[in-house]
Amino acid sequence: MSQTVRSTPRADDYRMPAEWERHSGCWMLWPQRPDTWRNGGKPAQAAYARVASAISRFEMVTVGVNTDQYLNARAMLPSRVRVIELSSNDAWIRDCGATFVVDDHGHVRGIDWEFNAWGGLEKGVYFPWDQDELVAQKMLEIEGLDRYQAPLIMEGGSIHVDGEGTLLTTEQCLLHPNRNPKLSRSQIESCLQEYLNISKIIWLPHGVYKDETDGHIDNLCCFVRPGVIALTWTDDQSDPQYDISAEAYDLLQSETDALGRPLEIHKIHQPQPMFMTEDEANGIDVVDTAVPRPAGKRLAGSYINFYIANGAVILPEFNDTHDTAAKRKLAELFPDRDVIGIYAREILLGGGNIHCITQQQPSGQRHS
Amino acid sequence: MSQTVRSTPRADDYRMPAEWERHSGCWMLWPQRPDTWRNGGKPAQAAYARVASAISRFEMVTVGVNTDQYLNARAMLPSRVRVIELSSNDAWIRDCGATFVVDDHGHVRGIDWEFNAWGGLEKGVYFPWDQDELVAQKMLEIEGLDRYQAPLIMEGGSIHVDGEGTLLTTEQCLLHPNRNPKLSRSQIESCLQEYLNISKIIWLPHGVYKDETDGHIDNLCCFVRPGVIALTWTDDQSDPQYDISAEAYDLLQSETDALGRPLEIHKIHQPQPMFMTEDEANGIDVVDTAVPRPAGKRLAGSYINFYIANGAVILPEFNDTHDTAAKRKLAELFPDRDVIGIYAREILLGGGNIHCITQQQPSGQRHS
Repeated sequence: MSQTVRSTPRADDYRMPAEWERHSGCWMLWPQRPDTWRNGGKPAQAAYARVASAISRFEMVTVGVNTDQYLNARAMLPSRVRVIELSSNDAWIRDCGATFVVDDHGHVRGIDWEFNAWGGLEKGVYFPWDQDELVAQKMLEIEGLDRYQAPLIMEGGSIHVDGEGTLLTTEQCLLHPNRNPKLSRSQIESCLQEYLNISKIIWLPHGVYKDETDGHIDNLCCFVRPGVIALTWTDDQSDPQYDISAEAYDLLQSETDALGRPLEIHKIHQPQPMFMTEDEANGIDVVDTAVPRPAGKRLAGSYINFYIANGAVILPEFNDTHDTAAKRKLAELFPDRDVIGIYAREILLGGGNIHCITQQQPSGQRHS
Repeated sequence: MSQTVRSTPRADDYRMPAEWERHSGCWMLWPQRPDTWRNGGKPAQAAYARVASAISRFEMVTVGVNTDQYLNARAMLPSRVRVIELSSNDAWIRDCGATFVVDDHGHVRGIDWEFNAWGGLEKGVYFPWDQDELVAQKMLEIEGLDRYQAPLIMEGGSIHVDGEGTLLTTEQCLLHPNRNPKLSRSQIESCLQEYLNISKIIWLPHGVYKDETDGHIDNLCCFVRPGVIALTWTDDQSDPQYDISAEAYDLLQSETDALGRPLEIHKIHQPQPMFMTEDEANGIDVVDTAVPRPAGKRLAGSYINFYIANGAVILPEFNDTHDTAAKRKLAELFPDRDVIGIYAREILLGGGNIHCITQQQPSGQRHS
């Protein structure tokens, strides 16, 4: 039975665990809208199915599907994946879904943030977002987990935590006037502290170049364990991404985490710049209620957009010369996990990647 | 994780438990279609909510809702009721939902029968029934329970079991040519034996007069415990129901159950004959894809259409002079349970009652 709790996680001694803490499962949504996904969503569905299939080798995966796609999703996904009706406007559960918090007794609750499709009527990605807005509530209802309603427009992809009090985010996104224009920086910080129970926020200025989320942290950098960060990088100083990554690197070098530890930063070289092809763009519906996806658009490709599952890391690959190095680096950073690469260009075409389309549900047990 | 099992419950030592055995919860669907339910479904929704609310005092209730009614259902139901997206064409989960079976180790699985809206294109109740057909599969998927696919068009309301090998049904329904015209009586019996793991079938000729399900057993009579049956009755020999009930009474008198016990039969006098009023009929959409619901139509009212919850019996009432006697009789028959009457005319207007709109999920523990 899911109840809406009127207090906050901090008041109740709940905290957001790090992604590497033990999961009871992983949530995904099913892609279908033909103005995001080319060719009626079929290539993206195949890519999502590969991701779901890979993760489901390590933990339970639930895929939420709009009613009209139920049987198709069921047919495309392995039987060990749980397929349920869970309507959405698009398929980015990291951003519209619940963020889970845990207490020290193994209890799990969820935070239902407000959601406005990455900007609402001010350059948001599509309209409407009414079904996305209900995803978190429905997830918690299905699981019978209590729900906090956070008074903040926030997407799960715009934060990363180390589970020990530190939060990473970007000013570009969380202070963007199309999210919470009536809240000051310190009000936003207070809200994050109350709901995620963190004590230190590290603000990076910008997210990845041309990221249509207004610079989500989860495409730029992330914790791989407490005190250790992976950062997308390029050696090409003529690439606009260079300054963004360098600026982040310098700032992180000068920072400490909530427990006063300096940060160890690992650069992961990005894939070669990628662009939407004519053929790809021609497969996408033109509408006036979603951002255009024209040929030539630069795609915000990054290896950082991986998902940490129980015992595994699920990594986007692009048939790029940097794939191997990224995979090798992550294998070093996660010595106890299998690192599994999934060819993910079709997900990237829609504006995100593997981390954006997944949401871990922690088990409440601290060990990984 | 739900898998489709290729064997049968009998082969795997699963059996359908009696309704009075312990439940882990109860499933319902949410009414909305304006060609079944008057006034946009609002009075029926209020009645369903009363039923869900009453049952949820005794066991977990899950209500499956079409996407467009999610927030309305959530608002009309108490927070202790779980509300999930689960699409349907109408709201009769007894008939389109899973029938659960258990083994002696506490495992639970579900049977997914074929469903054709009480007759398919041959005088079925509506068209299409595509979403109803998926309800059982989706229930089992949400719960992670394994699924048997039974090759029989059958509704849960057309059978009752005592959990000890005996099944009650009607020839009018299960042998109706609009259900399984290619199967003989003995083939249907074999299928029931294989899937419900029963050893004796008691066939009654007819269901309740004017019952639009083609005579479901669950409006006519049911087990209240092994060897004991409640039967709807009328003392009015001019009512066509009299012959139906008398015929059933005589047949049951001469029968024994699977264990050779004679049957003790308790008559429960039906409510006064009820008819759809002009005002009620005027609130129902006229369409050509569902049976007409005109003023003057006799309603198949019966007290037998109750639901046995953990510790309670939820009984339909009609503001009728027979309400009190029915409730008193059930209190005698179920001395360890609260008997709770719910005014249920609005459900009856749609063609069924409380038993038809509920489906118990057994816990797998034998004691009640």
